[in-house]
Amino acid sequence: MNVEILAIGTEMLLGQIINTNAAEIASRLADHGLNHQFQGVVGDNPGRMEAALRQAIARSDAVILTGGIGPTQDDVTREVVAAVADVPLIFDGDYAETMRRRWEQLGRHFPESNLKQAYHPQGAIVVENPRGSAPGFILDVDGCLVVSLPGVPIEMLGMLDDQVIPFLMSRSGTSAGVVTSRVLKSWGLSEAAVGERLDDLFTSSVNPTMAFLASAGVIKVRLTARGRTPHETEALIAPMEAEVRRRLGDHIFGVDGDTIEGIIQQQLRDRSWTIGTAESATGGLVATQLTAVPGSSATFRGSIIAYAPDLKVSRLGVPVELLETSGIVSEDTALAMARGARTALGVDVAVAVTGSAGPDPLEVDVGTMCVAVVTPIAERSRTFHMPGDRERIRTYTATAALHQVRLTIDAS
Amino acid sequence: MNVEILAIGTEMLLGQIINTNAAEIASRLADHGLNHQFQGVVGDNPGRMEAALRQAIARSDAVILTGGIGPTQDDVTREVVAAVADVPLIFDGDYAETMRRRWEQLGRHFPESNLKQAYHPQGAIVVENPRGSAPGFILDVDGCLVVSLPGVPIEMLGMLDDQVIPFLMSRSGTSAGVVTSRVLKSWGLSEAAVGERLDDLFTSSVNPTMAFLASAGVIKVRLTARGRTPHETEALIAPMEAEVRRRLGDHIFGVDGDTIEGIIQQQLRDRSWTIGTAESATGGLVATQLTAVPGSSATFRGSIIAYAPDLKVSRLGVPVELLETSGIVSEDTALAMARGARTALGVDVAVAVTGSAGPDPLEVDVGTMCVAVVTPIAERSRTFHMPGDRERIRTYTATAALHQVRLTIDAS
Repeated sequence: MNVEILAIGTEMLLGQIINTNAAEIASRLADHGLNHQFQGVVGDNPGRMEAALRQAIARSDAVILTGGIGPTQDDVTREVVAAVADVPLIFDGDYAETMRRRWEQLGRHFPESNLKQAYHPQGAIVVENPRGSAPGFILDVDGCLVVSLPGVPIEMLGMLDDQVIPFLMSRSGTSAGVVTSRVLKSWGLSEAAVGERLDDLFTSSVNPTMAFLASAGVIKVRLTARGRTPHETEALIAPMEAEVRRRLGDHIFGVDGDTIEGIIQQQLRDRSWTIGTAESATGGLVATQLTAVPGSSATFRGSIIAYAPDLKVSRLGVPVELLETSGIVSEDTALAMARGARTALGVDVAVAVTGSAGPDPLEVDVGTMCVAVVTPIAERSRTFHMPGDRERIRTYTATAALHQVRLTIDAS
Repeated sequence: MNVEILAIGTEMLLGQIINTNAAEIASRLADHGLNHQFQGVVGDNPGRMEAALRQAIARSDAVILTGGIGPTQDDVTREVVAAVADVPLIFDGDYAETMRRRWEQLGRHFPESNLKQAYHPQGAIVVENPRGSAPGFILDVDGCLVVSLPGVPIEMLGMLDDQVIPFLMSRSGTSAGVVTSRVLKSWGLSEAAVGERLDDLFTSSVNPTMAFLASAGVIKVRLTARGRTPHETEALIAPMEAEVRRRLGDHIFGVDGDTIEGIIQQQLRDRSWTIGTAESATGGLVATQLTAVPGSSATFRGSIIAYAPDLKVSRLGVPVELLETSGIVSEDTALAMARGARTALGVDVAVAVTGSAGPDPLEVDVGTMCVAVVTPIAERSRTFHMPGDRERIRTYTATAALHQVRLTIDAS
C-alpha cells in the first residue's frame, strides 16, 4: 500500500512552524511496512488544496492529511475533501452534544463556531480525538483512503497510533506479513561512535535492517525484521539485539517506549528509595523530567532550585568557603549541593547540577556543567562540556544528569 | 515570483530526519516577499524525482531543491536536473582542483568519489559552498529557475542567504514589493473564542490578511500586508492591529518573537523585583520556563518543589491544619505556598502551583490546578480545569501560571 502525506497550513509556507508531523507519520509507516513515496505541504487555500489532493488520490492508495480541521474560518479541509469526493457534509448531532457536554463539564462557555467540527463528509468513518475537540475522519475517494487528522502533534499521533495505522494495516492486504521493530536506546556515545561500533552489522544485515536515530544525546538503534509470523520476526531480531547489546554495553539503557525517567522510577521502586534534585543551571528541568512519569509521587519528593548563589548556602547548606575556593561551577559544589538536598528534602538519592548555560560565561566556559549524584551507598560526580546554545546545553545536561543517576544507582 | 521547495532524501520518507530546511527557506522567502505555495519531499529515486521536478517547473517560477548532491551513489539530483533540462553534465576541472587542494590542506586523503561533485549541468551558474564540498547550481529550465542546494542545513542556509535569495530577488521583478507580518499573541481565550471576536475582520480583510495559530494555550493572530514600501505595509497593519488589540484586551501579551518568560523578565526588571516558584504538580516546569531566557539570573532566584505534602509544611511553612481543612489542591494552599516561597527564597514575587496532573485523581479531579501569585502589593489565586493527559495538563498549567504572574504584576 502506497501512503502519502499532505500537510495543510499556511504557517508552514511562511516558515513559522516546522512540519514535524510528517517525520512522525513517516517513521510509523516505515515500521509497519507501508510504502511512502511523497510528502507535500500546501496552504489553507481551497483551490491549491484541491489540486494537491486530487493528485494524491490519483497516484496513492491512501493519503494522510494533517491540519485544517479546527474551528476557525481558515480551516477548510473538511469542505475540500467533501468537494473532491462530491458528497455533502453531514451534521453529526450526537458528536455536537458530546462536545458541548465536554465543555460544560470543564465549566467553560461553548463557542458555537466549534459546531463546525461536528460536520463530516457523507460516508466517512469518524476518527475519535480523545485529546482535543476536532475529530478526524477516513473517506474512500475513488479507491484512495483519504485520512484527515488534526495538525496538533499530540492529538494527531494518538489518533494515528490507536486508530489509523491499524485501519490501514487491515486494509493493506500485506497483513499476511509481519513487521517487528526493536529500538535499543543508548546514551554516552556519539552517533558516529555508535555507527563505528556497528558498521559491519549495518552494512551486512538485510533482515533485520538497522537504522540510527539521534535525539538530545540519546542514540537509538532500530532493528526492523519482516517475516510471516511474530515468532519468525522475533527470532530474526534476537541474535542481532544480543550482538548490539554486547558491543554497546551499559550505554544501552532501554528499549522501545522506555524512557530514562521510567527506568529510574523502576530502579528506585525496586530499592524503596526516594529521590530529589538540587539544581542551578538546569532551573528545574531535571525535576520536570522525573515528574513527567505517572506515579512519580511514589519516588520523587521534591527539589530545591538554588539559582542564586546565596540560596545554595541557605537552602542546601553548601559552605560559603567551598563556593569561594572550588567555585560555584565545580564537582565539589555539585556534591555539596546533592548532600544538602538529601538532608533538606529527606530523600535517599539526590542529583545536583551546577554549570554555565550561557550565553554569558559565568566564571567558567559556557557549556561547562557539573553533575553529582549521592545515594545511601555511593557518590559520583562528573563534568561535561556541552556544545550548542542555552536550550541545547540545558536539555543535554538534564539528560546527562538522569543517566548519572541510573549509573550511580546501578553501581550502588 | 512563485517559488516552491522540493526536498530530496529517502531518510525523510523513513522519518529518520525532520525537514527543517523547508521551514528555514520558507521564512526567508516570506521575509523577502517571494510567494511560496508548495513544498514537497521525494526519495532518492530518479523516476519520482523527475516527475516531481517537471510538475514544479510547470507551475512555478523557481524551485529550490535540497539534497541529493553529495558524493555517494544515491545522490542523483545533478543527473535528474540535466535529464529534465535535456543538457549534458560538464566536468569542471578548476573546481575539481580546488576541492582536491582543500582536502590536502586539511591533511586528508581525497576520495575520488568526490569528483562527482565537479560535474554541473551545461549552462548552470555554480553556487559556491564555502562550508562544504558539494557546490550548488542554478539552471533556467523552460523559464523556471531550478536551484540545487545541499541538504546539510548549515551549508544550505549560507548559500541561500548569500547567493540564492539575492539572485532570486534580482530576477523577481517584484523587488518593489514588500511583505510585512505582525503576530499578536493572546492567552486566556480558546481559538474558537478568538475566531468569534474577530470573525468580521477575518472575513472582510484582504490586505492585511488574517490567520490564526494555536499552540499550548497561546492563540496567535497573524496579520500580513503587502505593499510597495515598508511604510505602506506598516500603515496597512497599524489600524487592524489596534482593532484586534481593542477586541482581545489584556489577553494580548506580546507580538512576534515575544515569549511570556521574556515579558515577565522585562516586567520584573522594570520594577527591580525578583521571582521564585513553589511547585507541586508542575514539578519544576514553571521554573524551567522562567530560566529559559538568557539573563534570567538577574530576576530569578530559585524554587522549592514540594511534591511530597510534608515538604509543603517543612520547606514552605504551609500550616498542617490548612492542608487538612482546605486540602492540598486548593487556592488557599497555593496562596500559602506562594507566601512561604517569598520568605524561603527571599523573592519579591512568588508563584505557586498545586494540583492533580493524573492519571490517578488526587483528592480532586484530574486536571484541577490551583495557581497563586503573591507580589509585594497584590495577591491573586485561580483554579483551572485542564483537559488532556498528564503532559498536556502540566504544560498548559505552567503557561497559565506564567500568565497569572504577568496579570498580577500588571495589576500591582
